[in-house]
Amino acid sequence: MRLLLINPNTTAAITDKVVAMAHTVAAPSTELVAVTGRFGAAYVASRAAYAIAAHAALDAWAETPGPFDAVVLACFGDPGLDALRELSPVPVVGMAEASIQSACQLGGRFGIVTGGERWAPMLREFVAVRGLSTRLACIHTVAPTGADIARDPDGSLSVLATACAHAVDGGADAVILGGAGLAGLATRLSQRVPVPLIDGVAAAVGQAEALARLGASKSRIGSFAMPPPVDSVGLCAGLAAQLAGRSPA
Amino acid sequence: MRLLLINPNTTAAITDKVVAMAHTVAAPSTELVAVTGRFGAAYVASRAAYAIAAHAALDAWAETPGPFDAVVLACFGDPGLDALRELSPVPVVGMAEASIQSACQLGGRFGIVTGGERWAPMLREFVAVRGLSTRLACIHTVAPTGADIARDPDGSLSVLATACAHAVDGGADAVILGGAGLAGLATRLSQRVPVPLIDGVAAAVGQAEALARLGASKSRIGSFAMPPPVDSVGLCAGLAAQLAGRSPA
Amino acid sequence: MRLLLINPNTTAAITDKVVAMAHTVAAPSTELVAVTGRFGAAYVASRAAYAIAAHAALDAWAETPGPFDAVVLACFGDPGLDALRELSPVPVVGMAEASIQSACQLGGRFGIVTGGERWAPMLREFVAVRGLSTRLACIHTVAPTGADIARDPDGSLSVLATACAHAVDGGADAVILGGAGLAGLATRLSQRVPVPLIDGVAAAVGQAEALARLGASKSRIGSFAMPPPVDSVGLCAGLAAQLAGRSPA
Amino acid sequence: MRLLLINPNTTAAITDKVVAMAHTVAAPSTELVAVTGRFGAAYVASRAAYAIAAHAALDAWAETPGPFDAVVLACFGDPGLDALRELSPVPVVGMAEASIQSACQLGGRFGIVTGGERWAPMLREFVAVRGLSTRLACIHTVAPTGADIARDPDGSLSVLATACAHAVDGGADAVILGGAGLAGLATRLSQRVPVPLIDGVAAAVGQAEALARLGASKSRIGSFAMPPPVDSVGLCAGLAAQLAGRSPA
Amino acid sequence: MRLLLINPNTTAAITDKVVAMAHTVAAPSTELVAVTGRFGAAYVASRAAYAIAAHAALDAWAETPGPFDAVVLACFGDPGLDALRELSPVPVVGMAEASIQSACQLGGRFGIVTGGERWAPMLREFVAVRGLSTRLACIHTVAPTGADIARDPDGSLSVLATACAHAVDGGADAVILGGAGLAGLATRLSQRVPVPLIDGVAAAVGQAEALARLGASKSRIGSFAMPPPVDSVGLCAGLAAQLAGRSPA
Amino acid sequence: MRLLLINPNTTAAITDKVVAMAHTVAAPSTELVAVTGRFGAAYVASRAAYAIAAHAALDAWAETPGPFDAVVLACFGDPGLDALRELSPVPVVGMAEASIQSACQLGGRFGIVTGGERWAPMLREFVAVRGLSTRLACIHTVAPTGADIARDPDGSLSVLATACAHAVDGGADAVILGGAGLAGLATRLSQRVPVPLIDGVAAAVGQAEALARLGASKSRIGSFAMPPPVDSVGLCAGLAAQLAGRSPA
Repeated sequence: MRLLLINPNTTAAITDKVVAMAHTVAAPSTELVAVTGRFGAAYVASRAAYAIAAHAALDAWAETPGPFDAVVLACFGDPGLDALRELSPVPVVGMAEASIQSACQLGGRFGIVTGGERWAPMLREFVAVRGLSTRLACIHTVAPTGADIARDPDGSLSVLATACAHAVDGGADAVILGGAGLAGLATRLSQRVPVPLIDGVAAAVGQAEALARLGASKSRIGSFAMPPPVDSVGLCAGLAAQLAGRSPA
Repeated sequence: MRLLLINPNTTAAITDKVVAMAHTVAAPSTELVAVTGRFGAAYVASRAAYAIAAHAALDAWAETPGPFDAVVLACFGDPGLDALRELSPVPVVGMAEASIQSACQLGGRFGIVTGGERWAPMLREFVAVRGLSTRLACIHTVAPTGADIARDPDGSLSVLATACAHAVDGGADAVILGGAGLAGLATRLSQRVPVPLIDGVAAAVGQAEALARLGASKSRIGSFAMPPPVDSVGLCAGLAAQLAGRSPA
Repeated sequence: MRLLLINPNTTAAITDKVVAMAHTVAAPSTELVAVTGRFGAAYVASRAAYAIAAHAALDAWAETPGPFDAVVLACFGDPGLDALRELSPVPVVGMAEASIQSACQLGGRFGIVTGGERWAPMLREFVAVRGLSTRLACIHTVAPTGADIARDPDGSLSVLATACAHAVDGGADAVILGGAGLAGLATRLSQRVPVPLIDGVAAAVGQAEALARLGASKSRIGSFAMPPPVDSVGLCAGLAAQLAGRSPA
Repeated sequence: MRLLLINPNTTAAITDKVVAMAHTVAAPSTELVAVTGRFGAAYVASRAAYAIAAHAALDAWAETPGPFDAVVLACFGDPGLDALRELSPVPVVGMAEASIQSACQLGGRFGIVTGGERWAPMLREFVAVRGLSTRLACIHTVAPTGADIARDPDGSLSVLATACAHAVDGGADAVILGGAGLAGLATRLSQRVPVPLIDGVAAAVGQAEALARLGASKSRIGSFAMPPPVDSVGLCAGLAAQLAGRSPA
Repeated sequence: MRLLLINPNTTAAITDKVVAMAHTVAAPSTELVAVTGRFGAAYVASRAAYAIAAHAALDAWAETPGPFDAVVLACFGDPGLDALRELSPVPVVGMAEASIQSACQLGGRFGIVTGGERWAPMLREFVAVRGLSTRLACIHTVAPTGADIARDPDGSLSVLATACAHAVDGGADAVILGGAGLAGLATRLSQRVPVPLIDGVAAAVGQAEALARLGASKSRIGSFAMPPPVDSVGLCAGLAAQLAGRSPA
Repeated sequence: MRLLLINPNTTAAITDKVVAMAHTVAAPSTELVAVTGRFGAAYVASRAAYAIAAHAALDAWAETPGPFDAVVLACFGDPGLDALRELSPVPVVGMAEASIQSACQLGGRFGIVTGGERWAPMLREFVAVRGLSTRLACIHTVAPTGADIARDPDGSLSVLATACAHAVDGGADAVILGGAGLAGLATRLSQRVPVPLIDGVAAAVGQAEALARLGASKSRIGSFAMPPPVDSVGLCAGLAAQLAGRSPA
């Protein structure tokens, strides 16, 4: 199986971190190809950076030669998720959505812990869009952003453990450690958290493998079929070709 | 990996069908152990039979020696799902829930096609309990029950294809072919359905493998931790031991 | 009028308590017949015990000769409620549902106070299933279970009063004292609670009498009509006969 | 027991009809006092008439000497329901709310059939306000208003039967025949409707008796306690006294 | 443009305050006509007073000669809003609704600060009726009523500022200063509140001008068209004429 | 007053159309500045084009020298709305949101009619995100896209009138004619539609003027304050400066 991992922010070091974590959970035969956003914020922690990242994710996907069996969108919050699903011939998995769905299979209500306080309302809205507000117990953010945590994971463990404890107090039957920058920390913290603790990258890779094996076909009609062709300007060649309904050159 | 498949109705032939389908989708190294309910209806197609099946699923689970890496509850509608999650030390996957979550990763709204008209309100309520009513496009049942379809799959293809077409017309971006008795039919019908078509058993096995590999720990507190011990009467030894907080003999 | 009271746990002393309370509120001409679950937990305070109690309620109902004018399911949380409604030719009233509906006619939002902390999420989910989440202000549980409180009501009054006060602070316009084991305590506590305080047994008996007098007929079609006959194994004779569409022997 | 029936429209003939029906369902010992609105529309079938009727209900209540054990607001749609609850020392039952709650205890989803097409959106909104939209299957109105039907019940049976059939087709597990003008017709139609058919007046009287016997006290704090005194102008003496926190003269 | 401002309570001093504030925000060419309720409470701070105010708003509207380009209902909580919309040939704007819609265009979730604790549940219910519960962050009331604040605005600034701070802590991206009695205070408090602060009167006048200029026609069918004529008793001549479908004399 | 109109697709002819319509509704003293997206699809009618348009809207805004009193995002569906609100010091109005809010002040439920069938699910989701699903009656799309309609408005009137009629049949109390390409058609169709018909551009300009005059300040904290500075690559100078917290050069 061949998976494409898209990091829609522009920090290659975070891509590397995601890939490293993904290798620890993917099946041995799974091949991982990773790509980093070509434009946008160094890390996504605002509504503006998120909007740009959705375009960057499409751009990165369109410029990466396939084929793949599934695509993993490796930014927790999943910018561009449904747009990618519309264009991609194979399943697209979002890190936040995959984590939430895993959590929902391990308990009644889930909590989210992540870095960067601007993410709390954005993730609350994301959960609402996915229709799962009644399953959300609470969201707790810590002051360091995901990028900060990626640079100093050891220094962040304590504050993350406290946030997880708050999430459990807030009614979470399972806690998601969200954010590409937090990849791998669930393992180190799980002993200190008395409910299932979910690593976003691990959840996403697991869902990608599961959906790829499910073998469901691409929509041929409706909201997730390829859209009617449209002209465009100012886009990379691959994305312009996709919108125009042409095979990329 | 070792999975326990519980068929909570009392028809062993349906258990066999589920196992056969599960083998086609499970990883080669996955071992499957299957068990059939010891009491209850031959197939579940009413609220009463469903309530009994929830007990039968607990009974079957408690009487089957482990350990397992995950449990699959192989009755579409998932009787006893959260009760099993409370007692089981490993993840428990429901066939309906797994299908729904897979569908929600392939489109915006899903449809369900299954056998036996009594299931429609029961499944609509199930979707509501899981918090996903806004993602449900529609449910279409066909007159033959899952058991009927299991006995005569060829004769049911046409009516199922029609029901799938109605589901697509009703706004489904993905269609779930629900019911243990329908295991394996998605493959045969997918050409005739212009959106992703999901086999419930395949979805459940995929989710079970994914959750098992995720390696999240069992809740030690809260609503999905082992409950406080309680005396009981009239239960099988294994289940009584579980409720009493003792290891089964 | 003749009412059947089903206590779906297996502690006859709690059945007696419910009957004693029911006699104080039922019309003088109302005859009460009570039955205790034949298998399952001594008291229901977990998801597993709840699932078993649903079966036990069906079993108890099917084994008790009628006819009755209505059935009261006397376990707060109402295991097996809709399954009983499917089979029973007369109205079935759940203690939690009846309390909630009474509370909703006395104010805008209600609170629930009950024994055993495992009940809080189970009751929150129950309220959601009944569609009334927006009317729920809060749930407060006390550490002693309903069974503990039944054994020592005097010793529990103070902690219950405190929980009721928290419920009022939490926005409850009316407070439900839930649990068969708490039957009769509302009268003793009402002076200390500044909003309407509702006894679950009293609410259920009142609703049962009201629905019986309403005289609405049994569904002949749809989700609450008798289900199509189905074979079964391992059930008591009465329940097997019901599922098979035969009159019990 | 002594019940006050308030008909908040200004047609005494409808009040008489309600009282006649109420006598057939009330306990023999229940005394019924009825009062008709002193101002407003002859029948309520618009948002404007409804708003006026809420005031008229308060006015009628304040001008009628008590005490009563409960109050029945006998206009289907319940204008002034929560305002009456605020002022009244005893339970107040609305005909629509009581019918809905009865229906919700007899099945999963209910339908409403009533006279006058302007009621459909008003009742849909009423159900939403009470938090029960997910339990509503459908509303079907017939062209004649409740007042028309009251004048010619025989001529309306056929069109009402058809509307009930549509409600059942629309997923109703129980159907409410709403409207003071339709009082008594459920009995005549129930044979033709294959699910429970509920008479609004009967449901309201039953709920009033049940709530009165429940004996819950009046709120002393919060949103349904007596409001702080306030001066007023232009109101009847009784209502002015109530708002001012004085006993009526 | 000519706007009618209806103050549905009976305190002319509050009407004057609303008009004064309205003049500061209305376009120079906008003419303002104001009318005070002829019956009801001096100020609205209970469910009973609210129900009466809805009738008083209709009465005031029907007795005021037009024509107008739009109507502003200047009691925060908007008693009689939809009833006025049914009868009025021009748009009707409610102060609470207009504020909420403005707030929803300035952020994700809004808070409300107003005077009189009885308003909190009434406004929470109002927001739910308008379908916007998910956008409501919190409601904070201060002890002085709107009428108290109108009499002593200087003395209320501090407690209002504190309430606004609580609303921001509670997640409000914008805060509404609700209540006719608070008209004009947003300007004085905005420096002390770190998110947009909305004056209810200013929002309502702005929406009235915008809707009037939009020029949409009156409904000719459906729930907001003129209702079918109906006889009435005891109403003012103008309102009786409206209900009867006659032009007011 | 000075408004910025952003057309986030890349067809200048549609920008011209929007400006022409805006001039007919804006106050005489309102100055309009319009800008067209510099990259992306010629018109937005897919999830992918929508995601790109959100970035293009930010890009266009950041590259246009101000100051402005408010910003109008003139693509029905409002790509980038909340991201613009985060960065912009002045109110940002979306054409779809403004239309919906106007409609919600003219009736209970609204319908949307627009061009291009891919918009129906996207708009249904948009309404859900804004929290207003319960106010949505229905969405009807016509086959020609907004761009097609802009090119041949006369040829589209008939099909649009039919769609509006369907919306009214579907329960819409007001109908929104959505889409920049449909600007100005509401006037021509309003005679044929028996409920208020809303032009998206007119609604948006009206809301922009109203919000600008409201004079609420920019959030200084929370989810709509300027985000913390972040480095970026590959963006236009203006947008990079905004993300970095610098004034654009």
